Amino acid sequence: MVSERMLGLGTARSVIRELFEYGKQRAAEVGAENVFDFSIGNPSVPPPPQVDEEAVRLLQTENSTLLHGYTSAQGDAGVRQAIADNLNRRFGCRYTGDELYLTVGAAAALCCCFHGLACPGDEFVVSAPYFPEYKVFIEGSGAAMRLIQPDPDTLQLDPAALAAAVSPRTKGVVVNSPNNPSGVIYTLDTLKAAAAVLEEKSREYGHPIYLISDEPYREIVFEGYSVPWLPGLYRDTIVCYSFSKSLSLPGERIGYVLVPTQAADSGQVYAAVAGAGRSLGYVNAPSLFQRVAARCCGLTSDTSIYERNAGLLVSSLRELGYTCVQPQGAFYLFLKTLEADDLAFSERAKEFNLLLVPGSGFGAPGWVRLAFCVQTEMIQRAIPKFKELAQSYREGGAD
Amino acid sequence: MVSERMLGLGTARSVIRELFEYGKQRAAEVGAENVFDFSIGNPSVPPPPQVDEEAVRLLQTENSTLLHGYTSAQGDAGVRQAIADNLNRRFGCRYTGDELYLTVGAAAALCCCFHGLACPGDEFVVSAPYFPEYKVFIEGSGAAMRLIQPDPDTLQLDPAALAAAVSPRTKGVVVNSPNNPSGVIYTLDTLKAAAAVLEEKSREYGHPIYLISDEPYREIVFEGYSVPWLPGLYRDTIVCYSFSKSLSLPGERIGYVLVPTQAADSGQVYAAVAGAGRSLGYVNAPSLFQRVAARCCGLTSDTSIYERNAGLLVSSLRELGYTCVQPQGAFYLFLKTLEADDLAFSERAKEFNLLLVPGSGFGAPGWVRLAFCVQTEMIQRAIPKFKELAQSYREGGAD
Repeated sequence: MVSERMLGLGTARSVIRELFEYGKQRAAEVGAENVFDFSIGNPSVPPPPQVDEEAVRLLQTENSTLLHGYTSAQGDAGVRQAIADNLNRRFGCRYTGDELYLTVGAAAALCCCFHGLACPGDEFVVSAPYFPEYKVFIEGSGAAMRLIQPDPDTLQLDPAALAAAVSPRTKGVVVNSPNNPSGVIYTLDTLKAAAAVLEEKSREYGHPIYLISDEPYREIVFEGYSVPWLPGLYRDTIVCYSFSKSLSLPGERIGYVLVPTQAADSGQVYAAVAGAGRSLGYVNAPSLFQRVAARCCGLTSDTSIYERNAGLLVSSLRELGYTCVQPQGAFYLFLKTLEADDLAFSERAKEFNLLLVPGSGFGAPGWVRLAFCVQTEMIQRAIPKFKELAQSYREGGAD
Repeated sequence: MVSERMLGLGTARSVIRELFEYGKQRAAEVGAENVFDFSIGNPSVPPPPQVDEEAVRLLQTENSTLLHGYTSAQGDAGVRQAIADNLNRRFGCRYTGDELYLTVGAAAALCCCFHGLACPGDEFVVSAPYFPEYKVFIEGSGAAMRLIQPDPDTLQLDPAALAAAVSPRTKGVVVNSPNNPSGVIYTLDTLKAAAAVLEEKSREYGHPIYLISDEPYREIVFEGYSVPWLPGLYRDTIVCYSFSKSLSLPGERIGYVLVPTQAADSGQVYAAVAGAGRSLGYVNAPSLFQRVAARCCGLTSDTSIYERNAGLLVSSLRELGYTCVQPQGAFYLFLKTLEADDLAFSERAKEFNLLLVPGSGFGAPGWVRLAFCVQTEMIQRAIPKFKELAQSYREGGAD
């Protein structure tokens, strides 16, 4: 008597959430210090101090009725312009605030894009490994998700696979770099090749194919790597951004959609994104944190801690004989499992109180994801457990 | 090439927004003090001081990473329990936090309910005059809205009309009291009669018909009136609430859905509401204001100002020969237009710089809505303009 789809979504806990809850229960049994929880992508470093300082300043000095009042549906005009100015300084562009639509985080930004763009029969292409909620959001808009496989070693998006998957039904392609769950950053070569494919196919089919760039991890980039600005490489790019990870504010739900005027039918796309926001009940992005984001959009949390954690994990795990992809950004490490079945591997890891998310849920069986947005000393204490886990496979047993 | 429905929603500005924008433009032409804007339902009194004090205290004393971190999808457990405790004290119930699902305001709460409940072919019944976004939200969930007419004089919901409209397709009935746009509060008799209709029809059709009580104006109630607690009158009631109006926080987007365990299939309904939240991209309600709401849910803004405004408007307008419905709560007055066509009446009022929203958009032609969440002295200055407007009709012309 209720919506079957919604009931399913509300009942089936995600694997990640399942592991996280198991961790809490296990901590109660054996002590929190004996559980090594790599399950959740919750930032472990505090926001830059200016975030709380600005919020306090606004609360103490601004007119309270206005500060907490409705903003226009697309967000406060001054806030949008401040974010546009920041993008312009960093990427040498000329955006105005009118190309930005502020959202209740990146999840809302993606939902507004999918719902705004999707016509009956449309498909969105996603490359594995991928954030599982993409499928939920895409299907919620009435479109279908088409999954492609990445380069098996580097986990880069595979332009040949993209070319094979794109069809006249393709409305858009989702790109997520730095990537959750792999920590991989797509190279300039990868992205140029992908752009070339989409340009050719757009011409062939006579309609634009949008590149939807989901960029919550844009600011978490490790030494030697960089994240190309996608609208500079491909005209029909729409950017979905969140301040959740860059400013360690995931609970506050503040992000945006950028629809550059250069994009095909940009006026219609922007209006449809706004219409989707209206239809889904997003009245405006939270007003206090709109202002905080405007003032803090040039800052980030201390992301060097994530890089230190990545280095420690990679060197230790490789020394123990594990194979992993070098994390280039975000706060995830993708590890090859020591048996083909990643669900079984994750279960075995639990016996050593290591909580690792199976790759199958990300469209990547044979891998597990480690979220290393954790205390460094927890990683240090976890290393012996990874050693025991590897040993248990060499001994060919242990259950 | 984009979703036609979303493009339409994003392009067609609401009549209210249209008038509001006209008012800003007109203010630039003739001076803000000469424009009498009754168009927007934005609270005009500040939040109680404890709201900003609590927010500052949380920002200055809590662990910043935790304060701004993800909460569980249904909201922080402590916050939910605090709100349940407040409801229990006020309405003599025994709710637990597990019956509450925190939302990004009432619009999100309604969307989660409609999307969670709607099965193919379902209808939701709404009584005129009604908040126009109901139609957007209901149709967005794939269901249809069925509009019924109220008692023409009191604008109370008409139980006979309800009985005639309910069918085997009816999944729910939306009730909004105190009402936007009329300011009417449904009486205990009205609600008991409506509940009796729904009980009988539920039995007849063999499935529950949910009463969805949209209560953003619950705390704004004028002397001599009270708002009955609907779950006490009808078992299968789901409450949608927002702190936007009670605490003057509409921009912060914080509210909840209450699915009492007494309701039919409450476990499934709660899960479906949560699943809808997930599908629509609502990760969690904003985390700082979850905590603020928990600590301030027993407070309200100074709503006596709204009551004073209502009194002044009603006595002045009646003295001028206008007919209106006595506002009983919220901050809206519904006024009979002086010609049959409310759109023409609203246009004529603009000539006197009076911005009144035509009733047609609320399903009530022949009326206009005045939002009196404005400065009292603006009302005082507007009265002569209402006199001129009435005079222009007596003179049978003026254009």
